[in-house]
Amino acid sequence: MTGKTITEKILSEKSGADATAGDYVEATVDAMVTHDVTGPLTIDVFEDVTGDDAALAAPENVVFTLDHHAPADGVQAANNHNIVREFAAEYGANQYEISDGICHQVMIEEGFVEPGDLVIGADSHSTTYGGLGALGTGVGSTDLGTAFATGELWFRVPETIRFEVEGDLPDGVYAKDLILRFIGDVGFDGATYKTAEYGGSAIRDLPIHQRLVLSNMAIEMGGKAGIVEPDERTATYLEEQAGLEVGVDPDLAADDDASYEAVYTYEGADLAPQVSKPSNPENAVDVGETTGTDIDQVFVGTCTNGRYEDIRVVADVLTGERVAPNTRLIVVPASRAVYQRCLETGVLEALVDAGATFQSAGCGPCFGTHQGALGDGDVALATANRNFPGREGSMESRVYLGSPATAAATALYGEITDPREIDTTRYDDHAVSDVGVVR
Amino acid sequence: MTGKTITEKILSEKSGADATAGDYVEATVDAMVTHDVTGPLTIDVFEDVTGDDAALAAPENVVFTLDHHAPADGVQAANNHNIVREFAAEYGANQYEISDGICHQVMIEEGFVEPGDLVIGADSHSTTYGGLGALGTGVGSTDLGTAFATGELWFRVPETIRFEVEGDLPDGVYAKDLILRFIGDVGFDGATYKTAEYGGSAIRDLPIHQRLVLSNMAIEMGGKAGIVEPDERTATYLEEQAGLEVGVDPDLAADDDASYEAVYTYEGADLAPQVSKPSNPENAVDVGETTGTDIDQVFVGTCTNGRYEDIRVVADVLTGERVAPNTRLIVVPASRAVYQRCLETGVLEALVDAGATFQSAGCGPCFGTHQGALGDGDVALATANRNFPGREGSMESRVYLGSPATAAATALYGEITDPREIDTTRYDDHAVSDVGVVR
Repeated sequence: MTGKTITEKILSEKSGADATAGDYVEATVDAMVTHDVTGPLTIDVFEDVTGDDAALAAPENVVFTLDHHAPADGVQAANNHNIVREFAAEYGANQYEISDGICHQVMIEEGFVEPGDLVIGADSHSTTYGGLGALGTGVGSTDLGTAFATGELWFRVPETIRFEVEGDLPDGVYAKDLILRFIGDVGFDGATYKTAEYGGSAIRDLPIHQRLVLSNMAIEMGGKAGIVEPDERTATYLEEQAGLEVGVDPDLAADDDASYEAVYTYEGADLAPQVSKPSNPENAVDVGETTGTDIDQVFVGTCTNGRYEDIRVVADVLTGERVAPNTRLIVVPASRAVYQRCLETGVLEALVDAGATFQSAGCGPCFGTHQGALGDGDVALATANRNFPGREGSMESRVYLGSPATAAATALYGEITDPREIDTTRYDDHAVSDVGVVR
Repeated sequence: MTGKTITEKILSEKSGADATAGDYVEATVDAMVTHDVTGPLTIDVFEDVTGDDAALAAPENVVFTLDHHAPADGVQAANNHNIVREFAAEYGANQYEISDGICHQVMIEEGFVEPGDLVIGADSHSTTYGGLGALGTGVGSTDLGTAFATGELWFRVPETIRFEVEGDLPDGVYAKDLILRFIGDVGFDGATYKTAEYGGSAIRDLPIHQRLVLSNMAIEMGGKAGIVEPDERTATYLEEQAGLEVGVDPDLAADDDASYEAVYTYEGADLAPQVSKPSNPENAVDVGETTGTDIDQVFVGTCTNGRYEDIRVVADVLTGERVAPNTRLIVVPASRAVYQRCLETGVLEALVDAGATFQSAGCGPCFGTHQGALGDGDVALATANRNFPGREGSMESRVYLGSPATAAATALYGEITDPREIDTTRYDDHAVSDVGVVR
């Protein structure tokens, strides 16, 4: 018997079977999440499959957020919010309100996710939880509605592709640059229904908020999941962010003789800031190939890069400066806690003083319905995870993806700018917490 | 020859004629404003009526704002923003950006309005400028597009209805309560094409931010304009808010023998906080007739009551408290300057800590397209100016109108609450500026 990947270990534990890639297993789910778009669909399924004595299998593990169209950007959105509110109240599920934040950030901050957990969500970016060493994956509303009732779901145990990065990352290179590079290398369907397992010394050195970026975007190469081995940093993060005492389980690491479908290895020192050109995340290139492109709107936020540390990078660059006159900067924190930390630390004020538009927490303009949708011909750079045609508004708009540092430099100059060209030595006096360390 | 109303004086000055109610005059316009909804229509007209050598008669007096659908709540909104941006740049007009604020607040803060001015806007609440002793009125995009080219517009000189309030206002009674009462007394069409002239010692005692409320809502009784005689408070306000040195022109007061179509007189001491019930501003009743009504959403903002002093009233009540669990509180400041003042004074933080959703500056959910649209069956209380069916979202929603103090008390208890029942003595240590005095 060969060793196991993290995915195989978690699915073995949750199914009671000896789960190996390719097997089908029925597994117990630790937490489930849905939101204002998929929530009403999930509720419909749940009500269809249950009878008069309907009950959630474990209401304490069911979470609803209102994030995609929050605050309500129309009557349909408002009605969906009310459907979610009424269902959650009736069935005793957890429900978060408009401006409480994006589902994935709320799940983490509120302590619904621990290393080794199996977490499903009716949202494709449920892969995010892998940054904590959990197996997180997006499922359809039909699967989720059924799991609401049973607490279980079937899985085909995914094969795993390993991405290894060794050594130190150069200045200006963040997790966002790594994942754009990975996606560029394997293609938007290069990991379809597989787990992307991230390892190597450079990954181990990443603070958790950056590991979450790697896992979040696993889906952009088709991944069923994206996982980083949990460690002391994970335990410390969960204690500080969510008040959880989880410890570190050495058995959760992949076995040395685990079987991988492919292994991609990188030297950190060889990597450069990446930008994914319109209109696919796989169009990743070194930022230098795009510098000078005029940008109408910079958007900082989303479940990918809307955390405090992300927004602080932007504030650090823009403190005492002004957003370029041809550019708009829209900032949407990923949660109320992020918003409040931006407020308490002066990050919010610095950005507003620089001319930014700072919104309440949520998904923002990520999918083009409000809070900064793009018009015909608009060109944007976003810290988001997707840049498909029309994703942030008009089918005639174009979106580049980049890290918060690239977004900051771009907002300052109004054109795509290499973040390594920004002198940040003047920010050395900023306090940097252990958890919130900014690379 | 009888004496003149303020309206007749301003239209005489601007037309060079002896303007008397009922006359038709051609008058020179001092400033013109339009926004992201009416701007593109106005631009179309301007381009239709002008030839190849098109030019604005006075580009320095033409103002565009992006406020109604800002940040863009869809592709059409984004495209309209771009139409405005391109036109303003080409013709040298003033253009403000998303989250700079609502047209009427921006016009005042940026010094485009002085006492005695004639100001037109392609927005019905252009009556707001009357709070500074200007004649402000809303016009259609056709009229405005033509005036862009000529700098002039024809007017039928309106008759005037006088509203007099004498004595002191009781605690908890604000300008918003006065105007709701006036509208209730004369009806939603009771001042159609007339000027509402507001006077008496209670009006003279009102700080400017409250006088603007009276003028703003003149249109809700059909008024062509709503005017308060300018005075030392006006001059001080404009100096502090807009850096203008305007002095006080005693000739701008209405003559003692001016001719009024009707005069309504009130004793301040007899007045109570007012709420306009769904779904017409004329449905004004003493707040006591509505107390106990469950409220799903409280909205504080708009060109009526989205100024710093309005939002501060709400923060004063909610500091250290929580918005009631059955209620959402959405706050949208009227301008970037208001936002920044809320930030600097701790008002923003107090509201966010209390659970409020605080948005960037603009019109917010006032007309139901974003930032908190209402769903079927939702019941709201808003500091806005209109509560017609569907105004803030669903045709099946219901909106009550009230003052910021009533909104604050309602947000705290989750049901319509008399602001006089809130103990605010604990807020006595708050600094109160002369200009920004909160009643």
